[in-house]
Amino acid sequence: MARYAYVNGRFVRHADATVHIEDRGYQFADGVYEVVTVLGGAFVDEPGHLARLKRSLGELKIAMPFTEAVLKLVMRRLVRLNGVKDGYLYLQVTRGVAPRDFKFPKAAKPAIVMTTRRQAFKPEIPTENGVSVVTVPDIRWARRDIKSVGLLAQVLAKQAAAEAGAFEAWMVDPDGFVTEGSSSNAWILTADGVLVTRHADNSILHGITGNSIEALAAEQGIKVERRPFTVAEALAAREAFLTSATTFCIPITEIDGKTVANGHPGEVSRTLRRAYYAYGQARQAQPVRWPL
Amino acid sequence: MARYAYVNGRFVRHADATVHIEDRGYQFADGVYEVVTVLGGAFVDEPGHLARLKRSLGELKIAMPFTEAVLKLVMRRLVRLNGVKDGYLYLQVTRGVAPRDFKFPKAAKPAIVMTTRRQAFKPEIPTENGVSVVTVPDIRWARRDIKSVGLLAQVLAKQAAAEAGAFEAWMVDPDGFVTEGSSSNAWILTADGVLVTRHADNSILHGITGNSIEALAAEQGIKVERRPFTVAEALAAREAFLTSATTFCIPITEIDGKTVANGHPGEVSRTLRRAYYAYGQARQAQPVRWPL
Repeated sequence: MARYAYVNGRFVRHADATVHIEDRGYQFADGVYEVVTVLGGAFVDEPGHLARLKRSLGELKIAMPFTEAVLKLVMRRLVRLNGVKDGYLYLQVTRGVAPRDFKFPKAAKPAIVMTTRRQAFKPEIPTENGVSVVTVPDIRWARRDIKSVGLLAQVLAKQAAAEAGAFEAWMVDPDGFVTEGSSSNAWILTADGVLVTRHADNSILHGITGNSIEALAAEQGIKVERRPFTVAEALAAREAFLTSATTFCIPITEIDGKTVANGHPGEVSRTLRRAYYAYGQARQAQPVRWPL
Repeated sequence: MARYAYVNGRFVRHADATVHIEDRGYQFADGVYEVVTVLGGAFVDEPGHLARLKRSLGELKIAMPFTEAVLKLVMRRLVRLNGVKDGYLYLQVTRGVAPRDFKFPKAAKPAIVMTTRRQAFKPEIPTENGVSVVTVPDIRWARRDIKSVGLLAQVLAKQAAAEAGAFEAWMVDPDGFVTEGSSSNAWILTADGVLVTRHADNSILHGITGNSIEALAAEQGIKVERRPFTVAEALAAREAFLTSATTFCIPITEIDGKTVANGHPGEVSRTLRRAYYAYGQARQAQPVRWPL
């Protein structure tokens, strides 16, 4: 089956999907992105992702390429064209094409690109024994709240994890506190049964999936504290897990080769994953059709 | 005249110069670049730029797209094709095209892009009264020694300068020391006649033009100290200036609206600029011809 991408107003074959070499996304990482899960043909947490997209663009003073209504139409059209039932949509907006110059160009038109990928999601955790993480120093810039395509530090962190045979890298700030994973938010469940994840300031990306997990935890009567935690706290925790749009919620059972709790995925991680899956499925009740 | 770019093995019209949307330079800022001055049809400081390119690529474990000999051939061919006598060549190497995934792809082939631009250079300073800079916090990542295309912080800094009517932004670390400009190195000449510029660790990009300026200063008997300096030191200095491949050496006469020395370009800045121009012109004696 031909796979299509959307590039600046046109649906094109994926292989033919190109941008100009002077697109500022290519020369300056001057752009932002979002990844939105598709479950049963419908988007999960779409309002949160679009709100974050608008915020990221606003912080960089990049205009939305078109109205939110049109954006949503195009997103749906691409998912339909590619026959994606379960998977995700990747969306990137940059400041556009202009002769290379650091400062904002006067006349550039924001550029927008979308792709999709199929991926199966299950309510149960994907690996029987959870996953392992390694820790690396967080060497990123100071505006991690902006979901920019300037991801080189995260690339290096994820590569360090891969080389260590781990699933993810947790980035640690100079004070020894975990900020987040290279492409996920970091959580622990303390011995007292309190969920802890870092507060959403400029030191981390504000997780959309994480926000929903937090709400679902509250529904289950689990207390959530938004504060930094250390690696030692995580190792002493009852559970640890990560959240992101493409992984939902995955238990972490090993950090830097040391076992978390009894080394088996905990019940709260399992419960929250199931709850998030059900929450995503419930979205299918009102998929927005094309045309709107 | 048609202007050409070089893109992954082909010389193409600039307007048709595109890369795939899954080039990791576009999605992850997973690439590096160099800007090499062309003066009288010959490259200035080419060995330094190529050495830095190799180092940046090495730090990211990206292979050179081809041998240095071939790279130099292509660079010359593009300069000739575009009839550039004075100007510069922009060269970008990324990890290549691969399905989006943070960790290094197994099979990607490094991608390479080159463009040129014409620009006149003069031995005399381009603005009679020098230029002004503003200071901004340095919010970049911790590996500024790698000349990556992850330049969003520099874009925001340069834009802040432009909005303040300044030529450049000096980035300042949390301890109050100037790191460098958004696209240039920062220098002062102390009251004692000592040139000061930051030492080349991971906190700044190691300037190729700056290195040559340092050598030229030494030839003139001027002492150079490699250490951090504060904004207050710069304001109390006898001279201040910036260096980069496309600006050579430009005197700074105002910082955050405050006047440096008597507000006029100093003699050492002028002398070093003339010396660098002459040094660049001397390169023309042995331009490497196409074909080699």
